[in-house]
Amino acid sequence: MLVESWRGSFVESRHRVHVAVVDGDGRLVARAGDPDLVTFWRSAAKPFQALPLVADGAADRFGLTSEELAIACASHSSEPRQVELVRAFLKKVGCGERDLLCGPHPPLSEGVAKDYQTRGVRLTAVYSNCSGKHTGMLALARHHGWPTEFYTRPEHPVQQRCLAEVSRWSDVPAQHLGTATDGCGVVCFALPVRNMALAYARLGSARANPAIADFGLGIADSTAESSIRNPQSAIRNIRESMLRHPDLIAGSGRPCTDLMRAHPGRVLAKVGAEGVYSALIMPEGLGLTLKVEDGNSAAAALAIAAVLADLGVKPQPESLTVRAHINSRGDKVGELRVNGGLEK
Amino acid sequence: MLVESWRGSFVESRHRVHVAVVDGDGRLVARAGDPDLVTFWRSAAKPFQALPLVADGAADRFGLTSEELAIACASHSSEPRQVELVRAFLKKVGCGERDLLCGPHPPLSEGVAKDYQTRGVRLTAVYSNCSGKHTGMLALARHHGWPTEFYTRPEHPVQQRCLAEVSRWSDVPAQHLGTATDGCGVVCFALPVRNMALAYARLGSARANPAIADFGLGIADSTAESSIRNPQSAIRNIRESMLRHPDLIAGSGRPCTDLMRAHPGRVLAKVGAEGVYSALIMPEGLGLTLKVEDGNSAAAALAIAAVLADLGVKPQPESLTVRAHINSRGDKVGELRVNGGLEK
Repeated sequence: MLVESWRGSFVESRHRVHVAVVDGDGRLVARAGDPDLVTFWRSAAKPFQALPLVADGAADRFGLTSEELAIACASHSSEPRQVELVRAFLKKVGCGERDLLCGPHPPLSEGVAKDYQTRGVRLTAVYSNCSGKHTGMLALARHHGWPTEFYTRPEHPVQQRCLAEVSRWSDVPAQHLGTATDGCGVVCFALPVRNMALAYARLGSARANPAIADFGLGIADSTAESSIRNPQSAIRNIRESMLRHPDLIAGSGRPCTDLMRAHPGRVLAKVGAEGVYSALIMPEGLGLTLKVEDGNSAAAALAIAAVLADLGVKPQPESLTVRAHINSRGDKVGELRVNGGLEK
Repeated sequence: MLVESWRGSFVESRHRVHVAVVDGDGRLVARAGDPDLVTFWRSAAKPFQALPLVADGAADRFGLTSEELAIACASHSSEPRQVELVRAFLKKVGCGERDLLCGPHPPLSEGVAKDYQTRGVRLTAVYSNCSGKHTGMLALARHHGWPTEFYTRPEHPVQQRCLAEVSRWSDVPAQHLGTATDGCGVVCFALPVRNMALAYARLGSARANPAIADFGLGIADSTAESSIRNPQSAIRNIRESMLRHPDLIAGSGRPCTDLMRAHPGRVLAKVGAEGVYSALIMPEGLGLTLKVEDGNSAAAALAIAAVLADLGVKPQPESLTVRAHINSRGDKVGELRVNGGLEK
């Protein structure tokens, strides 16, 4: 599967795409390129990083709403409403903006970025697209009585809990998960695309691998016993919170939001940086993940829409079927479009 | 040849690179990937688009300096000095900023872009990285008595003259050259990477293919007879103007300028958009061109430095050997680096 960048009637550049589609029983049912490619899951791992919040009882303790759980799973656009939601969430768990360790960056939405620049809004950590995830991590630390300082470090129990959940749902033993530092400073995870797809299928079926679940339990020491009381209902809660709030998962005009809005309750889509994209199709419970080999994000957005369409989820938003190249004179000079599909 | 994007101790993304190296006799002496890949030459074609200026006598008529010829071949950084040079060049050929049909865009140098934004500089056409090329095209039109309006259109004799020179030096018959609209609105050319490399080798040797040269002559009608009086001395003039002014070809801190400054008089390097890069090594007269398959520019800059080093031009600037990934917290989280080399 390729995403081709056309200029006039010639292909100028090519983006190779690797895809794995896994069903509720964990079988690879479709693929493109190399489904065993190992790469970083980046922000597409967020549902599994938010899971301990619910599984360990922090969501109950703090009375977290479905909006708050959705924003914990989001790469949001820093829209005013999203930033306000994070601020309230922080307050609810007894934290403040200064506890957030995510670095600031321009909003992922060009429109929002331009608006804030015009208005001279100072972009602090709460404006980071990951501020919901970080707030969830602070909530988890508060709940367990772990220090809220240095919660981004690999050895901090918050990161260890996230790693355990990633391992549990992806079927990759913790010692085989690659780790590195994500764009926002927390731990990110390297694993095969196929295992990422498996985890999304399980986000649909809510069935984890018990053997790996036991393995995951070993990590959080004494606190672990009380944690993960009901991972099945926890993952259902995460899934339903995300499905209910497409507008919070990304933001106005961004691909995840457009894909989920086009098929409400049927598609859950979560982008990661560097051309990774995961999705879940309900009620079938098909999990899928793709990686654009070179990390191109625009190509990844077109590719995920094409893969969803290939799996019968149609129509996809027109903006995600083809993307025009406009030059400095405002003329259309070419376009980005998908060539090829899944091998089933 | 790959440019790999590492995060921690894992490769997260990969950029495939296709390379052709051609000697002064037109032989393919080294390669990587597919040297016959067809793509757009984009701004790496500029020396050949500037050539008619000298060959047709416009440079003599207007008394153009080596700085003015260099800026006509440049993708400049919109540095104040570069913009002033273009303004004076325009005036010299009896044109003004309003004659320029290139669209405005933020300067290619981040530092310059930031400075202009802070100072509220209005970015007009003269700030386009292509404004030197466009001024050269206006000069050519003035010289021949062609209309200066619509000089960017494919049917305008200026574009036809450029096409003839691209054909002559690349050995691709005009009817086999792909064409489309470039980022700045003029015609851009699609041809095999190997033929781009050949043209750069000839930029060194100043020997064109006479058969193709004759073909090229057919295009500019009556004006053609007087034009191209001495393509050999014209191309030498273009080469020497570029070699003499590395600071004008791109700008402070940009790869073309750094590569040429590192090896004065020995390396001529010219980037194009979408991951294309051409270079000439003197005095050997080796021409080379690479294309990063997916169009990534950062990867192309590292790749051209690696190819030059592989061909014995060392050391290359450290900034072009490895490029750190810095996350939103200011931490180094990975790097971009080249894996593999040329097949000789």
